[in-house]
Amino acid sequence: MTYCVGIQLDRGMVFMSDTRTNSGVDNISTFRKMHTFEVPGERSITMMTAGNLATTQAVVSLLQERTKTVENREPEILRLESMFQVAQLVGSTLKEVIATHADVGQKADATFNATIILGGQIKGGAPRLFLIYPEGNFIEAGADTPFFQIGETKYGRPILIRAYDPAMTFEEAMKLLLVSFDSTIKANLSVALPLDYHIYPVDSCATGTLGRIKVDDSYFETISNGWGVALRDAFGALPDFELPDS
Amino acid sequence: MTYCVGIQLDRGMVFMSDTRTNSGVDNISTFRKMHTFEVPGERSITMMTAGNLATTQAVVSLLQERTKTVENREPEILRLESMFQVAQLVGSTLKEVIATHADVGQKADATFNATIILGGQIKGGAPRLFLIYPEGNFIEAGADTPFFQIGETKYGRPILIRAYDPAMTFEEAMKLLLVSFDSTIKANLSVALPLDYHIYPVDSCATGTLGRIKVDDSYFETISNGWGVALRDAFGALPDFELPDS
Repeated sequence: MTYCVGIQLDRGMVFMSDTRTNSGVDNISTFRKMHTFEVPGERSITMMTAGNLATTQAVVSLLQERTKTVENREPEILRLESMFQVAQLVGSTLKEVIATHADVGQKADATFNATIILGGQIKGGAPRLFLIYPEGNFIEAGADTPFFQIGETKYGRPILIRAYDPAMTFEEAMKLLLVSFDSTIKANLSVALPLDYHIYPVDSCATGTLGRIKVDDSYFETISNGWGVALRDAFGALPDFELPDS
Repeated sequence: MTYCVGIQLDRGMVFMSDTRTNSGVDNISTFRKMHTFEVPGERSITMMTAGNLATTQAVVSLLQERTKTVENREPEILRLESMFQVAQLVGSTLKEVIATHADVGQKADATFNATIILGGQIKGGAPRLFLIYPEGNFIEAGADTPFFQIGETKYGRPILIRAYDPAMTFEEAMKLLLVSFDSTIKANLSVALPLDYHIYPVDSCATGTLGRIKVDDSYFETISNGWGVALRDAFGALPDFELPDS
């Protein structure tokens, strides 16, 4: 499995993805699931992937035009005029890759599937955040649904629902995402550190702060331990149930 | 879907189940998913069910021997010597019901499935808590895994993992379960109030406190609102992330 979240804030967007891939429980590896595309000052695009690793790597390679020699590469994703067109390109590429591999050999319908969170901004347009389905179609985030999750989404959802605020600072948003990831990691073996993140400030149209939270990251440990204590304290502060006959 | 939790404490067991059943999103109903069996002073058995409603109702009816006339009913579940035997009986009944209906007509493999949490105590034995699978086999709770969840388990799991303590009072345990249910209800339409509960004090060998948290329950509202505030406060008290370049 996987866990990735992309959120929209007033001041930009924050993306976070784990790096664990597994095929069964005894074949685990670390792979980057976050990919960025950039024309500095003109566009910044971030993609995060969940699902079949061969599918998602093929999609990224095709978008980077790695089928061509280095000097002949002019990735379309760096030339399209709007984020909507970028989402269409990513969606159709994803759909084609799945269709290609599903055509021969194994027919299991979920096996080659993948889902993608795509966010970014092209100069002159607004920052936009999309969730792209294996069928190639997609939905866009808005004020009512300002974040998307893919992969193992349930454990980390309650805190996102309750603590998200569009006016958050990037520092608070990073904390929120780390709490959400920590809840997921605590409950599910298939999601694990390190975590990749990208903090994109609105209208910069360039890659913002890219980083990785490593396994022994002291801030993550502070959050993970602190959140356990804070949860128990918060829980203790609520009034106890009164038994009907007491 | 459904959400049911059974937890073991030093002082007994607490069971809680929601009451929503749905077939699609436009066919929702309220059904009791918690069933108790009792010989006062001799045994108390609680069952909670998740899965196909026809299957779980058939299992309960068979255990109550409703195929017989009222005067001829001597339910085996009230006569077996140990909780282990009770778990075997429930498991085999569940397996048979699923097999009967799977044999004719529809063949979809998940359609008639159900899972059961079974807990109770028979005089002379210890209180025991089981999770029974559609195949009829089962696992038992212990010190390392002192609670079982069935149905829509993920949203409400992080708080159970973090705040559970075997020395809890019943009042605290009820609060914990209500927080766990609240997180689930907030995130998933297929789980809803009212909630049924049974608080079983160890060695009583009789039905303890049975009750229902109704839709407008003021304590549940206090917990639900209070937990949202407490979560945001706890979140706010954690140190913010420091951007690498700040």
